[in-house]
Amino acid sequence: MVMYEMTDLQYQAVYNVLSFALASMMATTMYLWFRSFAVKAQYQSAVLISGLVTFIAAYHYIRIFNSWVEAYAYGAGEVVDGAMEMKAPTLTGVPFNDAYRYMDWLLTVPLLLIEILLVMKLSEEEYSSKAWALGLSSALMIVSGYYGELVVSGDLTPRWLCWFVSMGFFLYIVYELLVGLAAATNSETDPVIKGKIQTAQIMTVISWCTYPVVYLFPMFGINAGTAVVSIQIGYCVSDIISKCGVGLVIYQITYAKSNKEGLLS
Amino acid sequence: MVMYEMTDLQYQAVYNVLSFALASMMATTMYLWFRSFAVKAQYQSAVLISGLVTFIAAYHYIRIFNSWVEAYAYGAGEVVDGAMEMKAPTLTGVPFNDAYRYMDWLLTVPLLLIEILLVMKLSEEEYSSKAWALGLSSALMIVSGYYGELVVSGDLTPRWLCWFVSMGFFLYIVYELLVGLAAATNSETDPVIKGKIQTAQIMTVISWCTYPVVYLFPMFGINAGTAVVSIQIGYCVSDIISKCGVGLVIYQITYAKSNKEGLLS
Repeated sequence: MVMYEMTDLQYQAVYNVLSFALASMMATTMYLWFRSFAVKAQYQSAVLISGLVTFIAAYHYIRIFNSWVEAYAYGAGEVVDGAMEMKAPTLTGVPFNDAYRYMDWLLTVPLLLIEILLVMKLSEEEYSSKAWALGLSSALMIVSGYYGELVVSGDLTPRWLCWFVSMGFFLYIVYELLVGLAAATNSETDPVIKGKIQTAQIMTVISWCTYPVVYLFPMFGINAGTAVVSIQIGYCVSDIISKCGVGLVIYQITYAKSNKEGLLS
Repeated sequence: MVMYEMTDLQYQAVYNVLSFALASMMATTMYLWFRSFAVKAQYQSAVLISGLVTFIAAYHYIRIFNSWVEAYAYGAGEVVDGAMEMKAPTLTGVPFNDAYRYMDWLLTVPLLLIEILLVMKLSEEEYSSKAWALGLSSALMIVSGYYGELVVSGDLTPRWLCWFVSMGFFLYIVYELLVGLAAATNSETDPVIKGKIQTAQIMTVISWCTYPVVYLFPMFGINAGTAVVSIQIGYCVSDIISKCGVGLVIYQITYAKSNKEGLLS
């Protein structure tokens, strides 16, 4: 594994974006968990699971943040007239562990798909078969991707193979979200609720597109310090949209459904 | 980036004020979250979000406090007759990360505006359009301000430009709070509730005035150790007023409204 030197600005950019993502995950978790009591009993699980996704992500962002901090160290400069110009951080030799992201996805991605299924009009059998199919294929997509990360050294063929395998599962999930579930989405009579379900599906698909693109960076020789910064910022933005954003939309769907079904006056 | 030496007293002043702000944020969070169950269902979200604002701020105050501690180090003095005269702390070379404040504001400032909107008499369309307009303009105000912070080195022209851009958004928000929302505020029939809504609006506007003033300090050559101390104390005081103070007023408004509407006996 190779680590790259960072300028002060690059190091701080990643540091602050990681902290921002952590704060977003924690705040969303608390909001969703508290609000799970405000929706009808049958939807509480969906809101609770949306909060679990951000909770698991918050844990991993604490780890990723700490790993980033441990990978670099600042040294003291010279003091002139009571002021010190800060120097760029240097590498400590402790590797920045990006595998936390894969561990996170392995838990959160199936849960994300399940939270979308839980707010849709599906029979128990449909829900169960879709949940298994989507949960399993998303897990396999991530395992294959992680395997490709591990074998990267010189020969990029295995990484390409893994990318294609993962993309197969990825396209199947996109197909299910946009086409396979279209009948259930269209069966919603309320246009607002239907619109929000489509928003959740489309936000998920669009934000997920970051991951296969970033995965290809080493293939195109983009793998220096600047690439590390863009990868980390890209992952954080996608995570905030797909976890916090989609989670809040899921809550809005359950709230609107509870409202319509007469729990709230 | 430049860091300044501190006397023992200066270092301790910032240290203790940061800790005080952290304690205030944590205590307000717990109070608001517990009390969110004491108000009518339709107002719970406003109280919960007020608690989220202080929760997010508490997280950032932990980070800011730790960053302050890591930026300075105490060295041992000589022990004479069983007593050691404390020496002033020295710079470690680890930069004090003030960007946490911008990350904090990016999340909390839109939420602060939304919590005010949530307790006002607005139709769903008005609420939605105001929430988007105020949320987006406050986010742009902060992004522009942060950009100006990053480019500060020698030439202060970009910082001035950013200040003017941010002030444009700032004045729009002030206008909306004091004038654009006046009709909704005046539609409150209860004079106590109306007065409290005005208090929340005015507290927000006044406490926010600190930020653009502090931002100008480097333009006037005020950027030494003493300035750092006043900036940190100023930010803490403003944060306590605009987050804890306004949050508690928001709770009082929802409590008074619930009372009036007959939930509480």
